[in-house]
Amino acid sequence: MTRVCVLGAGYMGSAITFPLSDNGVGIHLWGTWLDDWILDACRHGKHPKLRKSIPENVSLFYSDKLEEAIEDAECLIIAVASEGFVSVFQRALDAMKRSFPLFCLTKGFVPVSGEVNRISEVARRMFHERFPGEDFRWVSVGGPVKAVELSNRVPTSTMFGMNSSAMTPLMRLFPTDYYFVSCCDDVCGVELCSAFKNVYAIGLGIYDGLYGGGREKYFHNLKSILFNQSVREMALLIERAGGRRETVFDLSGIGDLYVTSGSGRNRRFGEYLGKQYVPNDAYRLMYEDGEIAEGYHAVHHGMKFINTLENSLIEELPLFEMLYRIIAQNRNVEDELRRFLKGLGMQ
Amino acid sequence: MTRVCVLGAGYMGSAITFPLSDNGVGIHLWGTWLDDWILDACRHGKHPKLRKSIPENVSLFYSDKLEEAIEDAECLIIAVASEGFVSVFQRALDAMKRSFPLFCLTKGFVPVSGEVNRISEVARRMFHERFPGEDFRWVSVGGPVKAVELSNRVPTSTMFGMNSSAMTPLMRLFPTDYYFVSCCDDVCGVELCSAFKNVYAIGLGIYDGLYGGGREKYFHNLKSILFNQSVREMALLIERAGGRRETVFDLSGIGDLYVTSGSGRNRRFGEYLGKQYVPNDAYRLMYEDGEIAEGYHAVHHGMKFINTLENSLIEELPLFEMLYRIIAQNRNVEDELRRFLKGLGMQ
Repeated sequence: MTRVCVLGAGYMGSAITFPLSDNGVGIHLWGTWLDDWILDACRHGKHPKLRKSIPENVSLFYSDKLEEAIEDAECLIIAVASEGFVSVFQRALDAMKRSFPLFCLTKGFVPVSGEVNRISEVARRMFHERFPGEDFRWVSVGGPVKAVELSNRVPTSTMFGMNSSAMTPLMRLFPTDYYFVSCCDDVCGVELCSAFKNVYAIGLGIYDGLYGGGREKYFHNLKSILFNQSVREMALLIERAGGRRETVFDLSGIGDLYVTSGSGRNRRFGEYLGKQYVPNDAYRLMYEDGEIAEGYHAVHHGMKFINTLENSLIEELPLFEMLYRIIAQNRNVEDELRRFLKGLGMQ
Repeated sequence: MTRVCVLGAGYMGSAITFPLSDNGVGIHLWGTWLDDWILDACRHGKHPKLRKSIPENVSLFYSDKLEEAIEDAECLIIAVASEGFVSVFQRALDAMKRSFPLFCLTKGFVPVSGEVNRISEVARRMFHERFPGEDFRWVSVGGPVKAVELSNRVPTSTMFGMNSSAMTPLMRLFPTDYYFVSCCDDVCGVELCSAFKNVYAIGLGIYDGLYGGGREKYFHNLKSILFNQSVREMALLIERAGGRRETVFDLSGIGDLYVTSGSGRNRRFGEYLGKQYVPNDAYRLMYEDGEIAEGYHAVHHGMKFINTLENSLIEELPLFEMLYRIIAQNRNVEDELRRFLKGLGMQ
């Protein structure tokens, strides 16, 4: 039996065990030091976030059992929050006796000593410090996947961006009759879509806050401008960063933006902004509710990242700039929307 | 003062007079023989569909005054329903003393003697019979525009696909600070997006019928599959028909599909199907309500069109095929959705 080790027992790490388990894969689910209570709950009944029992052939490993969890796995699946990525991945590298193929469900950017980097780039450097000269085999997992739905076996499509054909044989572990896997070789595109779609989903949420609740039905043309402009900007941005436009025009980009802007935490954060909440207040309100609006961080990191690419690039991303001004600079939402639209009119 | 003549006084023909009028353009609005009652209503108060007065500098021309309406115009804007296109355009050609640049807001396919054709192709043939050897100057107007919103001056983006740079000087007539015009030279792509997005919007409507009303929040992954697959298939289809994929990935495709699947007649038709109405009954029900589900016709015409391109192309369009089987062949909605998803799983 093939064995895999999943790092992180939150929403996504636990949800991915469902298709793997349905394929007869043996699963070691390792919880970080923040997840021990989740494993406790799982042992005595249900996963507290997914609200259901996890599959029977999943073995649980507490945070102090990382070495055992990894030992006989064929590959690692990293599913921790982006803030925890560096420390968890370092511990995992330290615990490895040999190198592993890596699948990454973590989304967003990783700040390392003030600089903002793509996760795969950070991981590659760390990997080569531990295993100099060895092949870095990596898949970034993107696309429209709500974890609870995946664990309910709702039909779900996902995009695997892989850096090496050496990963191909492992692909067989994932697809089921409800989990559809498309593959491409654009790691950069898949990874950046995952981060930036959270920012743009805030924009659609702002629309909901401004025009939702009855008035919405009179402003569809405007909503479509925001959705379409999000896709345009993601395509431009990702192309300049070395990824491919086509990646944006598929599951990782359009598909994921569609699902993220239709519901979820980033959309909700935007809705608060549309209702004139101060960004920090809106963030805190949700945080106290146990919800992290990832797009709030991604807009700060995203701006740093954009500035590393090209100084004037931001001028070609007026919607991103609008969101940055609203979220990071506390500007007035309606003024900024007007300003953005005025710019469109002058194109 | 520049003068234009708009053919058709329905939703779109009347709505386009708002930005034109705001730009100081003189407008002759000609109503077809089906529109005389609309002109009567406009003369005595409000446009009965837009529910507001039309701009003051619009002159109204009844159906028997076509020659006068056209005479001193710089260009014609065709905005009749697709079923009326051939007869109206023939009358207009007969009434022309010289050739005109043409803007076309009519969407969909035109069946001529059993064959299904793109509107611009039919128009080109008819034009050259009347004006042999003269330049056929044509713009297909696409993108996410709800007419009532445009007449409310809600921010609106649109895509003009033009066949000739001779049209460029006329572009100045349209853009305002709420009507944003993007241009491309892909007439075929813009035109086919307008037709096919109505078909795919039915698919999203079916989703709403099956999973709406509370259950919806548990099936976002599936909804995103349908949206993304619609874009994938439109891109493939339009590329094979001689258009460009990039056209699908912008306002004409993604933007218009987003707005059309979010609300409107085709989405509503799909919702009925999702609730197990027989397609013909659903169509009739809406028809009696004064609403035409254009996608119902477009799925029939679309299949004919696809078959003219390549015999086996339909095999690469499983979502279109699903919709055809449901709408044209009365197959069971849930069976067909399962069949479609099973196919995705085997890719």
